[in-house]
Amino acid sequence: MASYPSTQVSPPLKDELDIVIPTIRNLNFLEQWRPFFQPYHLIIVQDGDPTKTIQVPEGFDYELYNRNDVNRILGPKASCISFKDSACRCFGFLVSKKKYIFTIDDDCFVAKDPSGHDINALAQHIRNLLTPSTPFFFNTLYDPFREGADFVRGYPFSFREGAPTAISHGLWLNIPDYDAPTQLVKPLERNTRYVDAVMTIPKGTLFPMCGMNLGFNRELIGPAMYFGLMGDGQPIGRYDDMWAGWCCKVICDHLSLGVKTGLPYLWHSKASNPFVNLKKEYKGIYWQEEIIPFFQAVVLPRECTTVQKCYTELSKMVKEKLGPVDPYFSKLADEMVTWIEAWDELNAAPKAEPSKESSKPKPK
Amino acid sequence: MASYPSTQVSPPLKDELDIVIPTIRNLNFLEQWRPFFQPYHLIIVQDGDPTKTIQVPEGFDYELYNRNDVNRILGPKASCISFKDSACRCFGFLVSKKKYIFTIDDDCFVAKDPSGHDINALAQHIRNLLTPSTPFFFNTLYDPFREGADFVRGYPFSFREGAPTAISHGLWLNIPDYDAPTQLVKPLERNTRYVDAVMTIPKGTLFPMCGMNLGFNRELIGPAMYFGLMGDGQPIGRYDDMWAGWCCKVICDHLSLGVKTGLPYLWHSKASNPFVNLKKEYKGIYWQEEIIPFFQAVVLPRECTTVQKCYTELSKMVKEKLGPVDPYFSKLADEMVTWIEAWDELNAAPKAEPSKESSKPKPK
Repeated sequence: MASYPSTQVSPPLKDELDIVIPTIRNLNFLEQWRPFFQPYHLIIVQDGDPTKTIQVPEGFDYELYNRNDVNRILGPKASCISFKDSACRCFGFLVSKKKYIFTIDDDCFVAKDPSGHDINALAQHIRNLLTPSTPFFFNTLYDPFREGADFVRGYPFSFREGAPTAISHGLWLNIPDYDAPTQLVKPLERNTRYVDAVMTIPKGTLFPMCGMNLGFNRELIGPAMYFGLMGDGQPIGRYDDMWAGWCCKVICDHLSLGVKTGLPYLWHSKASNPFVNLKKEYKGIYWQEEIIPFFQAVVLPRECTTVQKCYTELSKMVKEKLGPVDPYFSKLADEMVTWIEAWDELNAAPKAEPSKESSKPKPK
Repeated sequence: MASYPSTQVSPPLKDELDIVIPTIRNLNFLEQWRPFFQPYHLIIVQDGDPTKTIQVPEGFDYELYNRNDVNRILGPKASCISFKDSACRCFGFLVSKKKYIFTIDDDCFVAKDPSGHDINALAQHIRNLLTPSTPFFFNTLYDPFREGADFVRGYPFSFREGAPTAISHGLWLNIPDYDAPTQLVKPLERNTRYVDAVMTIPKGTLFPMCGMNLGFNRELIGPAMYFGLMGDGQPIGRYDDMWAGWCCKVICDHLSLGVKTGLPYLWHSKASNPFVNLKKEYKGIYWQEEIIPFFQAVVLPRECTTVQKCYTELSKMVKEKLGPVDPYFSKLADEMVTWIEAWDELNAAPKAEPSKESSKPKPK
């Protein structure tokens, strides 16, 4: 089994990866990440009031988009990008020209592994994305591509090639990613357990994808990484990443792409207000009881051979099956189509052509 | 979420669990397990030459069956029990009258956790079996029933009750459970990674179940825990536990029962001979390429509401679909039926009736 080289040329994928950060505040949290992030390009999506100035620590290479930029670049299609919600991060995925994305929240810091060393979360995501996934059969010793591990007895040899990895979902020490009811019931619970594993979420199984600490291959799954309509003017919040995760997972399953979860951990510093969260979540909590069976039943037609085709097909299913649950889903389905149109518009240019300067505001 | 009490009345399930050990040698390995196993009843299945005397350390409560006992107790149905192969362990499952089984190989010793404490593997299996599984949706923080953990944001509330746990599959430090080709390629690889997690294998996903360190609820899944025909006179070995695992998993999925894997670890002391293993495995290695698609496609009829009915139905499918691969599978299918007949015969008596003395040889 090819194992990932333990001494790698640093920094890996420097010119092939963008770090996308949605924020409403100054990005002081980057200071702690400097040793790991500084070689990479940042795409900052400024949420909320576009007149506010966001401070970015010295020495980072970045582009920053506020709502005015979103409106100018997308025109009428800007309707698909959420406002006053971290769901706006997907605008960064849209305008990136790189093959890989790592996205992180601005309240997330560097965690330590059990031996006390700082965890380079980005490097672990890159390892996860550059090695295959194993969605077709469960390996009981976890990631068989990791050094010191392999496929166990009884793992079919024809499955050992695995599948290309589309998504690497990382976890959080300290404040766990709980919903409002669980936050209310367990206000003091902290995640202190470091589980030293990366695993593939098996084909056919859905999972709750959190956007706080997430890497993905934009070429493989980018067009499905749409964080939906949340926040200002919408009846629901805090389901943006979940929505993206469910859409991505059924499409990955259809296209035989892999989704990993586990390492890396980062340090999630502060719990959001459970009362505010409950207000954002409560419709999601009961809609979800219809959404999950819907996604579990999704079968995409064989003709859907690209992510775009899959996503467009999925938008039709959402309108037909979830539209009756609430008019919100019809609107969401429409914006899923808008998103794909925007994606194709901004990503249609041949790779050799430099991206238009007008779509890349200068760092402020 | 109800968490398992950290201070439990010890020893848990003392009168409801049997420890099943297949062996060909003296059971000195039990000395190391004495603090954890001594309160429990052991069922020892002596493989190979029945005239050999197996020494069991003083102070253990056990019953021991050799091949003569198997033949006497099962009569013509003894044909379903393998000879000269650890697959014979399932005879112990058959004659047990307890609700839970823990089975372990005699080359497995007590492992240490990262803090240097001896791991009570049995206690962890019991915890795994007494808390629900979560087969319908993946929880990214692993076992939500463990202290300090819960279901994460986005986990549907209607799934949080989980499913009764039928199987607890434990892992191995030191010698990993590799097939012969991997043993040959990586003779020096040792498993040194302690992954502090228990997780549910999702519904619809198969896994390689190893019989070295395995707990299960005999009432829920016992009749499917048949280790097939291996060893003496059979064309294949080292697929006994795999076969049981695939049969059990499709039946657990059908009956909405859970299968967990992960903790506890034990210390697997010695690698078996890879050349001998290759001879045992080689047919399995290529048959498996037909066996796995077969199990992945199994759909049991709704009328199959008991494990026995499921297993009988599965035996018919094995004969029909795998029989053409090799006559071995027709024979195996027949013995699957024999096994169920033997199970029903030995387990038909009302629980209150004491088991027949004739079927319980005195400790030697």
